[in-house]
Amino acid sequence: MGAESRERMFLRSALTEDNRFHSGSETLPWIASRAAASPFSVETVPLASLDGWSFADTTGNLVHRSGKFFRVEGLCVRTNVGPTREWEQPIIDQPEIGILGIVAKRFDGLLYFLMQAKMEPGNIDPVQVTSTVQATRSNYTQVHQGALPRYVEYFLDPGRARPLVDQLQYEQASTFLGKRNRNMVVLVDDDVPVYDDFRWLTLGEVTQLLCVPNLMSMDARTVLSCIPLVDYAEAGHLEGALPAALDLRPDSFQYGLFASMGGGRAVNSDEDVIGWLAGVRCRYELDVQHSGLASLTSWTRDQHSISHEDDRFFSVVGVHVEATSREVSSWDQPLVKSSEKGMIAFLTKRINEVPHFLVQAKVEPGNPDIVLVGPTVQCALGRERLSDCSSWPRYLDTVIQAPAESVRFACVQSEEGGRFYHVENDYRIVELDPDGDNDVPEGYLWVTLRQLNQLLRYGEVNIEARSLLSCLSLR
Amino acid sequence: MGAESRERMFLRSALTEDNRFHSGSETLPWIASRAAASPFSVETVPLASLDGWSFADTTGNLVHRSGKFFRVEGLCVRTNVGPTREWEQPIIDQPEIGILGIVAKRFDGLLYFLMQAKMEPGNIDPVQVTSTVQATRSNYTQVHQGALPRYVEYFLDPGRARPLVDQLQYEQASTFLGKRNRNMVVLVDDDVPVYDDFRWLTLGEVTQLLCVPNLMSMDARTVLSCIPLVDYAEAGHLEGALPAALDLRPDSFQYGLFASMGGGRAVNSDEDVIGWLAGVRCRYELDVQHSGLASLTSWTRDQHSISHEDDRFFSVVGVHVEATSREVSSWDQPLVKSSEKGMIAFLTKRINEVPHFLVQAKVEPGNPDIVLVGPTVQCALGRERLSDCSSWPRYLDTVIQAPAESVRFACVQSEEGGRFYHVENDYRIVELDPDGDNDVPEGYLWVTLRQLNQLLRYGEVNIEARSLLSCLSLR
Repeated sequence: MGAESRERMFLRSALTEDNRFHSGSETLPWIASRAAASPFSVETVPLASLDGWSFADTTGNLVHRSGKFFRVEGLCVRTNVGPTREWEQPIIDQPEIGILGIVAKRFDGLLYFLMQAKMEPGNIDPVQVTSTVQATRSNYTQVHQGALPRYVEYFLDPGRARPLVDQLQYEQASTFLGKRNRNMVVLVDDDVPVYDDFRWLTLGEVTQLLCVPNLMSMDARTVLSCIPLVDYAEAGHLEGALPAALDLRPDSFQYGLFASMGGGRAVNSDEDVIGWLAGVRCRYELDVQHSGLASLTSWTRDQHSISHEDDRFFSVVGVHVEATSREVSSWDQPLVKSSEKGMIAFLTKRINEVPHFLVQAKVEPGNPDIVLVGPTVQCALGRERLSDCSSWPRYLDTVIQAPAESVRFACVQSEEGGRFYHVENDYRIVELDPDGDNDVPEGYLWVTLRQLNQLLRYGEVNIEARSLLSCLSLR
Repeated sequence: MGAESRERMFLRSALTEDNRFHSGSETLPWIASRAAASPFSVETVPLASLDGWSFADTTGNLVHRSGKFFRVEGLCVRTNVGPTREWEQPIIDQPEIGILGIVAKRFDGLLYFLMQAKMEPGNIDPVQVTSTVQATRSNYTQVHQGALPRYVEYFLDPGRARPLVDQLQYEQASTFLGKRNRNMVVLVDDDVPVYDDFRWLTLGEVTQLLCVPNLMSMDARTVLSCIPLVDYAEAGHLEGALPAALDLRPDSFQYGLFASMGGGRAVNSDEDVIGWLAGVRCRYELDVQHSGLASLTSWTRDQHSISHEDDRFFSVVGVHVEATSREVSSWDQPLVKSSEKGMIAFLTKRINEVPHFLVQAKVEPGNPDIVLVGPTVQCALGRERLSDCSSWPRYLDTVIQAPAESVRFACVQSEEGGRFYHVENDYRIVELDPDGDNDVPEGYLWVTLRQLNQLLRYGEVNIEARSLLSCLSLR
């Protein structure tokens, strides 16, 4: 790997928005051209007519005839946290670990990422920018009986590439049961063929694309969130050193973010953060009983969809897909459809002059260990925003009513189009006045970006928070 | 907490072997006196005669009539790792999180730990030194209908003490199904009553007691292993600074250990360590099927015990206990008895002049996520040491044949006497010649002490490795 550390390689790429291959203004037209080049149609169809899918006789679960891919079953959930303590819901069971991988390569010493223009049936605009590879185990073990996903060999064969990032991370725990993917970035030294739907981008260019609504896929965002820009083993040395290289104003939000990665002056120590998680996992209860879809009393299951009796939360619908650029040219599948746009937001605040993020211990039925660390506000897949604001989730009003000058990031991002149908969330990062008090209610904690990144690499941060973190720019 | 960080408080206490209350030479006589003061008898009795315990009708599982405490059930295990790929075994199911807690208090600014002389039925010498509190949830919610454990209020009531350490850590995954305890150290500012079986010790004194065979309980050892001596948020600043205060020779093992906590120069980066764990969790398979004890074909279950047909691994036996110093004065219970003394060992080696520890990805049936990080050698609860040495676990010969001058620690420690009957393990830390090559087989990795401690605080290190780490002394 030469003398430069991986963190420095990533950081230099993150600070580079020029591309030796194409100008940045060509990226969006290229994506449009890829959409035009690969006609693609998605039609909503009744669940009952999905080829290969059916409701199992006894359980009523929605299953594929191969027994593979995923299945939709039922859960009865009880907890002692939050306004709703007991509910039923459908959940996706897909107990295999997929690969979300980005191929990286140095050109003249600068790191580029091989990003893909890819269609997914649930995308709002048909084509998004995604990782080099997004493969379920079924994909790369060829249950589809289609072609092996392009570039997957760099992730499966240790001789072909050197892993720079390799972390197991959880998916949406509101709709997936303990589902994880292997989030990887691998460094390739050999020549890499660049197929039509692929293009080399710097990390800085990728970060710019995160400001375009619904363009960067959830799969790409979760991998990007795992990329370390700082070596924490050396973190104590950083403060004051690198921010100068960034040419940032010392009072800027980005300067503070970078300095906070250097450690120190966190309002809660690392031990406090770990103790906070231990404490909520002891106090919070989560009892998840599996049951057949047929036995859920508050959900209806008919020819067309699986939906809640009050049309709340989400529904499961069917689509028929015709494509030319996928492993398989046509297929049917169920997708999760939300009943409204969600909100995923971090409140941040300078405490001791260091930016802190307000995290919550988020209880969700698919969590393997009761809670994961979530963003300040997470009301995806609900209708909380529509209801009377007195019943809004905590801090939602603060985010929505924030003055424009305190909004550090705002963009609409959508969920993974291979499982979710047109599901959008407002992403916001809002900075609070440093003079307010730092008290937070049970289940919330102020952490620095370094602490949040440490939790993330050990698999303790949920996908909603990771995805929002991927949108943080150092510029 | 004043200006001194918790890590500095712990470190100063770890470097202090003088006690304002008693001289160090009084500790062992005090323990003997506590044993004499509280008569205690343990009698092995047939399982069938255990009061309150019985084999359930359909499953054959060993259960308590209250449905609480724990139960012994059966597992059928399959994996794709190691010499044995498929086996049956009994396992203890105790799905509640207990508290292992030490009360700490400053006297003239120096931190003392309130250690307990406690009898457990499975102890070899009846009394061991243990944490201030070791309470199952049944204990402190009073299923026993006995007295509330002393001092437990400091751990349950957040107003009484400030947590310095609070981590969820797993127990023996060879015999417990996903069992965790909350490992805590709390700082109390109020006056603390000191009852007969309790005594204030510095961390340095406690560490000295770890060199006495079978004296420090497993429960104490796991809590001690969680104590941070270095603030990793500042770790980059440490190297060269603190070791001088330790007055150590720069070429000593302890100096290297301390310097290695300051980060840098690890042969594998932090990302590599996380990627190694992600990789083995994708490649290694562990399928655990629950079954009744009655359906295990290779285990016999009779009036006296549950044991393997070849007398291997372990057995489950019954004891009748008469005590005067416990919450309940007499009781019956099952205990796990090993068929031989085990070995728990780390190989260490200076690589780039920094001490590294050789860890293994240890597959065990009670692990929640296939593997946890284990010591180099872990053959507890087996009879691998007795068999033909060609079938010994890897590196066992290196440990056993190590010349005396390379042994950094050697002592016999025993497992928790509340669940294990006279189960002893040889604990060894052996330093290898730095000139040998650093290649290791699949499933093993060299990590620094800083990296190992980071894995530990995030719950990724098994109890055998943690317990051995607690024996590391900075002197």
